[in-house]
Amino acid sequence: MLDSYSKSIANLIEEFEKFPSIGHKTAVRMAFHVLNLSKQEATEFANIIVQAKENLKFCRFCYNISDNDPCDICQDAKRDKSTICVVEDVKDIIAMERTHEYRGLYHVLQGVISPMNGIGPNDIKIKELLERLKDDTVKEVILATNPNIEGEATAMYISKLLNPLGITVTRIAHGIPIGADIEYIDEVTLCKALEGRRKL
Amino acid sequence: MLDSYSKSIANLIEEFEKFPSIGHKTAVRMAFHVLNLSKQEATEFANIIVQAKENLKFCRFCYNISDNDPCDICQDAKRDKSTICVVEDVKDIIAMERTHEYRGLYHVLQGVISPMNGIGPNDIKIKELLERLKDDTVKEVILATNPNIEGEATAMYISKLLNPLGITVTRIAHGIPIGADIEYIDEVTLCKALEGRRKL
Repeated sequence: MLDSYSKSIANLIEEFEKFPSIGHKTAVRMAFHVLNLSKQEATEFANIIVQAKENLKFCRFCYNISDNDPCDICQDAKRDKSTICVVEDVKDIIAMERTHEYRGLYHVLQGVISPMNGIGPNDIKIKELLERLKDDTVKEVILATNPNIEGEATAMYISKLLNPLGITVTRIAHGIPIGADIEYIDEVTLCKALEGRRKL
Repeated sequence: MLDSYSKSIANLIEEFEKFPSIGHKTAVRMAFHVLNLSKQEATEFANIIVQAKENLKFCRFCYNISDNDPCDICQDAKRDKSTICVVEDVKDIIAMERTHEYRGLYHVLQGVISPMNGIGPNDIKIKELLERLKDDTVKEVILATNPNIEGEATAMYISKLLNPLGITVTRIAHGIPIGADIEYIDEVTLCKALEGRRKL
């Protein structure tokens, strides 16, 4: 299908097609957007890509991706150092930060335990989490892995490791999302919502 | 919303958001895809962008975008030099080439006459088309602008210019697309299909 394109356009389309959720048609549209940029804009765009790869590093403490190491959150003196929220992915930190409610630190596992995909406890940043708990500053670990099989299993695994250490281990609540319609909620979520009911 | 991202990630997300049909969520996904590339892959991607801008130029004859000037189609000795297919956009050439039926040359108008948007006949490559018809090699001009108001008006305008020159001017057929269901075809298309009926 790429035959009729010039080499340079075909290369560009191919690159864009490698992106997640980008199909052929969107890739073509994106390639032509690049062609419509001025030479200067295109060079800037290319630089931003290279710079992102060069500047961004993992925080040595929480494995967040950041321009700084330690990352801005770990460096922030105003954050509550006694709480760590454990998430699967850097993007989950962004979601948590958007709440403007959580003021503790994070720990990015960079994955979940998933025997089906050959990912065991040693392939994600669990050792590194245990390391951070050694000096007794941390009083609570909030497990905010995703509410699916792997996320639950990972949360269970970590809670079993941490309970003997005398640290409070909590799991974020499952239930009906705000704005949803109970009529259309799947039964597993509804079960979780019932289980987690609280006295008013 | 971009506040919680590091500067380098935020820049990257912003760049991707500038693309057509890319919203915030896709831009975030794309930015993280770039972060997951190896340094070498990211540099390669950046180079492909810069190279595309540097290598691609408009063909001096047909205004196709190509790594070569004249473009591959204009240079191809096997193409029928007596027919020119007039299209609005470079992408329309690709669509025509996919048919593997058309063996003539092209002419890209780089737009359509659109008084609403302040685009007159002098803002698109009509003069350049007339220039190409001067040496009498071209016997037929096929007008393949889009079947909408601007495309039709542009086709009408060009046909009026060319008819006195003794060149055959044709318009691609309008009608029911293959595989469609007559029940659901809009009435304008159906009218065109009736108008354009042929003896079997």
